[in-house]
Amino acid sequence: MDLIFYLTDLAGVAVFAVAGTLLAFRKKMDGFGVIILASATAIGGGTTRDLILDLPVFWTHDPTYIYVIIAAALLTIIWLRFKSYIPINTLLIADAVGLAFFATMGAQKTLAAGFTPFIAVIMGTVSACFGGMLRDVLARDIPMVLKSELYATTCIIGATIYTVLVPYFPVTALAASMLVTLVVRLGAIRYQWSLPVFKEHEHH
Amino acid sequence: MDLIFYLTDLAGVAVFAVAGTLLAFRKKMDGFGVIILASATAIGGGTTRDLILDLPVFWTHDPTYIYVIIAAALLTIIWLRFKSYIPINTLLIADAVGLAFFATMGAQKTLAAGFTPFIAVIMGTVSACFGGMLRDVLARDIPMVLKSELYATTCIIGATIYTVLVPYFPVTALAASMLVTLVVRLGAIRYQWSLPVFKEHEHH
Amino acid sequence: MDLIFYLTDLAGVAVFAVAGTLLAFRKKMDGFGVIILASATAIGGGTTRDLILDLPVFWTHDPTYIYVIIAAALLTIIWLRFKSYIPINTLLIADAVGLAFFATMGAQKTLAAGFTPFIAVIMGTVSACFGGMLRDVLARDIPMVLKSELYATTCIIGATIYTVLVPYFPVTALAASMLVTLVVRLGAIRYQWSLPVFKEHEHH
Repeated sequence: MDLIFYLTDLAGVAVFAVAGTLLAFRKKMDGFGVIILASATAIGGGTTRDLILDLPVFWTHDPTYIYVIIAAALLTIIWLRFKSYIPINTLLIADAVGLAFFATMGAQKTLAAGFTPFIAVIMGTVSACFGGMLRDVLARDIPMVLKSELYATTCIIGATIYTVLVPYFPVTALAASMLVTLVVRLGAIRYQWSLPVFKEHEHH
Repeated sequence: MDLIFYLTDLAGVAVFAVAGTLLAFRKKMDGFGVIILASATAIGGGTTRDLILDLPVFWTHDPTYIYVIIAAALLTIIWLRFKSYIPINTLLIADAVGLAFFATMGAQKTLAAGFTPFIAVIMGTVSACFGGMLRDVLARDIPMVLKSELYATTCIIGATIYTVLVPYFPVTALAASMLVTLVVRLGAIRYQWSLPVFKEHEHH
Repeated sequence: MDLIFYLTDLAGVAVFAVAGTLLAFRKKMDGFGVIILASATAIGGGTTRDLILDLPVFWTHDPTYIYVIIAAALLTIIWLRFKSYIPINTLLIADAVGLAFFATMGAQKTLAAGFTPFIAVIMGTVSACFGGMLRDVLARDIPMVLKSELYATTCIIGATIYTVLVPYFPVTALAASMLVTLVVRLGAIRYQWSLPVFKEHEHH
């Protein structure tokens, strides 16, 4: 099970590194700035989680995470050099897959550290959302999490499913949480699902 | 006294959650993005303070803070749905009240953890300013703290009053610090007080 | 040797405080916002480093750092009041000198805390780049580190030189690392050196 968790974590890091590289490309960045943006996306959420929970920051004791980020970013750069056309929502899809991995793994790591299920749901959401938030702030985009399309809601749903199911069905919990997060997020992108909060916006 | 500190802290969190929700409304955000912006405003400053002082992050061991944020944000959302007109400076006033609570409580918590009065003044300012700074960065506004109107100065004054008075008059220190912070900040907003630093700005 | 490290650290803090004040001037900020931006630039990188490595945050136990920041910012403000013309790249040069100090000292502090050379290179880069990144995000500029001109690359080179040489020649390592970082960065600014990553940017 620990190996599954480890590989899921690495996969999430790789996918977010791809998303960061794609945004760097779209923003016409160059040089090592690309690797910095890929890294901020990939480890920003988990680093924030570990700092808040006062755990050792995950990548400081295992360089594999950094190797995976550099490899994922370089492969994406090579791919972008050969492709003549990049569909606009490749970034959204990479980001959605990353959300699914990180909402689940964030909740898992929080529970393993002995915190309550309520905090596990919050920290799953923080793990999943903060990397992308940092990426968007650095690249001066409005953070996806603050625009609609059920972004944060998706992470809360995924982390809640994991937290509720894991005492009874550990493996199913992992699979169900990631699958539901991914499906809800892709559905929200495809069909523009949203959660209306304010009735109208005429007044300031 | 501990109960008074706790309630003051909760009140500060609630007021900053209201300020975050109001900015989300003005920025036409929707869905859970509103709750995220409210939370970032409400706990961003205290989280930064606890991380820097290496204390347990205050809301990870007491879910009450999160409940208060969600309740404050939801009540503000309901209020915004019924109001047909929101005065522009409601946000500024909510923010000013939050500053008063957090500059004082940030200094109090830093002293209680055994740091020097000098660090207490700095951390009171950090507690008060960083939530709003995070809110403005995420919503892509220029942070209020970097614009004039005595924003940071107000927090430094409030935290200093608390730190100087608390060894002699604990209760008065709390009340005086919050009152002076609020009055100075509201005065700065109302009468455009400022502290000129640069003589002129013609040259770049 | 400890005294040399301490003075180098203080010099780096002072130089970054100057860079923050210059950006505040260019952005027409006023009041205490200037000191806040100077402080964020000067201690943002080292604070992030200490948080990630779970070390006590350097300035919380030694107020000298804060005194140096305030003094450097005030002297810069006085200088700006008397100067009638500020060359545009004074900010770039102050930033470059700060990079040289912090890339080296970040690596040094990480090695001293018992982490691997690989992590030391990363944390040297983080120490050097995060203060300026925070400064640029707060002032709503595109972070220098994300634009080209070998910004992050320079820090990686400097931190690597220090990490490789320090077991054999501690003093030379310090001098060589700072000198090479400074020369590469100034060369990149002067001659527009860059590291092309993406072949072209026609497609989005």
